[in-house]
Amino acid sequence: MTPASADDRGVVVGVDIGGTKVLAGVVDEAGQVASTALRTTPGRRVVTSQVEDALVEAILESADGRRLAGVGVAAAGFVDSHGERVMFAPHLPWQGEPLRDLLQDRLGCQVLLDNDANCAARAEAHHGAARGATSALMITMGTGIGGAVLVGGEVLRGANGMAGEFGHMQVVPDGRACECGRSGCWEQYSSGNALVRNARTLMGEQPSVLEDMTAGHPDRVTGPMVTAAAEEGDLVARKAFASVGDWLGVGAANLVAALDPEVVVIGGGVSAAGDRLLDPARAALQRTLVGAAHRVVPDLVAAQLGPRAGMIGAALLLRDRVS
Amino acid sequence: MTPASADDRGVVVGVDIGGTKVLAGVVDEAGQVASTALRTTPGRRVVTSQVEDALVEAILESADGRRLAGVGVAAAGFVDSHGERVMFAPHLPWQGEPLRDLLQDRLGCQVLLDNDANCAARAEAHHGAARGATSALMITMGTGIGGAVLVGGEVLRGANGMAGEFGHMQVVPDGRACECGRSGCWEQYSSGNALVRNARTLMGEQPSVLEDMTAGHPDRVTGPMVTAAAEEGDLVARKAFASVGDWLGVGAANLVAALDPEVVVIGGGVSAAGDRLLDPARAALQRTLVGAAHRVVPDLVAAQLGPRAGMIGAALLLRDRVS
Repeated sequence: MTPASADDRGVVVGVDIGGTKVLAGVVDEAGQVASTALRTTPGRRVVTSQVEDALVEAILESADGRRLAGVGVAAAGFVDSHGERVMFAPHLPWQGEPLRDLLQDRLGCQVLLDNDANCAARAEAHHGAARGATSALMITMGTGIGGAVLVGGEVLRGANGMAGEFGHMQVVPDGRACECGRSGCWEQYSSGNALVRNARTLMGEQPSVLEDMTAGHPDRVTGPMVTAAAEEGDLVARKAFASVGDWLGVGAANLVAALDPEVVVIGGGVSAAGDRLLDPARAALQRTLVGAAHRVVPDLVAAQLGPRAGMIGAALLLRDRVS
Repeated sequence: MTPASADDRGVVVGVDIGGTKVLAGVVDEAGQVASTALRTTPGRRVVTSQVEDALVEAILESADGRRLAGVGVAAAGFVDSHGERVMFAPHLPWQGEPLRDLLQDRLGCQVLLDNDANCAARAEAHHGAARGATSALMITMGTGIGGAVLVGGEVLRGANGMAGEFGHMQVVPDGRACECGRSGCWEQYSSGNALVRNARTLMGEQPSVLEDMTAGHPDRVTGPMVTAAAEEGDLVARKAFASVGDWLGVGAANLVAALDPEVVVIGGGVSAAGDRLLDPARAALQRTLVGAAHRVVPDLVAAQLGPRAGMIGAALLLRDRVS
């Protein structure tokens, strides 16, 4: 069988829907992104069809009139184990809607669905920081912590489609209160939110350029501000990163003890800080991991595909389906 | 091809070597144990050939003159990812000896090797409490905590052969000191040792039948004593179990958040206490697990194969190799 040309087969589109934006793009077999389209996520308090409209618009715009061979969707929420529905999403209105079938009907092509962290892990495994690894741990540090587990070259979905929900592993008994209603969750100590919280607390204790940046209002501190301040050598910002990085390594060590992966990939917005985050994490991983003297301690590396990872990984859902 | 009779093919022997004893047995394809042989483990301070002698003796005694089709070995220690060597074992003298090849030479048949927790999980997955599940978490509570992860019907071995080392996941920052040199490890709060420690501490605070059992010497308390005292309704023993059970559930919730398995199987000596251990663990799992309202919370059940699980699972290593 001779391979058909791209025009004959149509294009594969990956689309990533997060709490604030919808990013769609045509992705080729090498993981390269040809054309993209962006929409604002309509939010949580709209009817679900408005969110589906935004998805369809972004998909069709990115395809730009070409036939759709298939569409992969990465959604920021819990996707059921069959990949049919978004069961719950903190920033989206879906509650069990059969999103896959709805989009399939509207687009007239095959649609596959997974959560965004799983898609990002799939992308990093095929085209990014975990390329060549058959086992990997992907930890996504954004507002909170998400993640995914790669085993035998495949993303582990779990019995409920909920594998990889690392952020709410309890690391401190009776620790900091969490939005989830429990306390001591890992993401209360290592995440974008934790970074900002650390900085705000430390600002009360010592001088910091963050005071100028926020005109003396610690409640205006943002993650990117802490990153910028750390770059300038600000001690408050650096301490905030050191703590978040240390906790990243402690939590990673727990997961490595359980799963013994070849590599640990850190993605998400906070990972843009690079070694400022990863160096303390590496030290904590080495210090905390069981049997470190008897094993190869896995590398802890930054993700390579950035904010496009979810979209690329969504398109990869179709990889073996469209030939 | 007509199946050969058992006599033609020879027998498959599983052997489990722990810190105190060597248990070998002929195991058939249904996981039934036909004949067994027991030896005392020579200990840690002997030359390694003495341990191998004990293994060979137990294997040959259990085979009772029948031809060996293959031997599976379950070892209480770190087995390398290729299944060739015991890299380190707290109660055995091996440090990287090529045990698989040594035994193969002495026995003249194929030998396969894995660690004991992996073997026990394999046995429970095929013939015990995780029968029919494709994903499971196996937590072995003995002196400490061991474990294994079943994914896609297979035991996850990990990049170093060290997956499933749950006991040294840190659950309390700067917590109780652990034999491993770190602190706050899970097994310091949930294990046979933790049970005994809890009982000893509580004995100083309120009356207990354990005082009679130990003639007033808390340092003589053993795990089985605490189990017996709890059966009698002793409050100290019951509190000791409640705490160990609660911590079992908290740690299990962390692993379930990461892996989303179909079932959680609790094995090891402490699991003989049954619901006295498992009920508080189930309550803590339900309380601590992320998204419990949006998922099927996995059953937390007792292992079914008891102290023979390691031996049976060792024989299962040969399952697909001997036909």
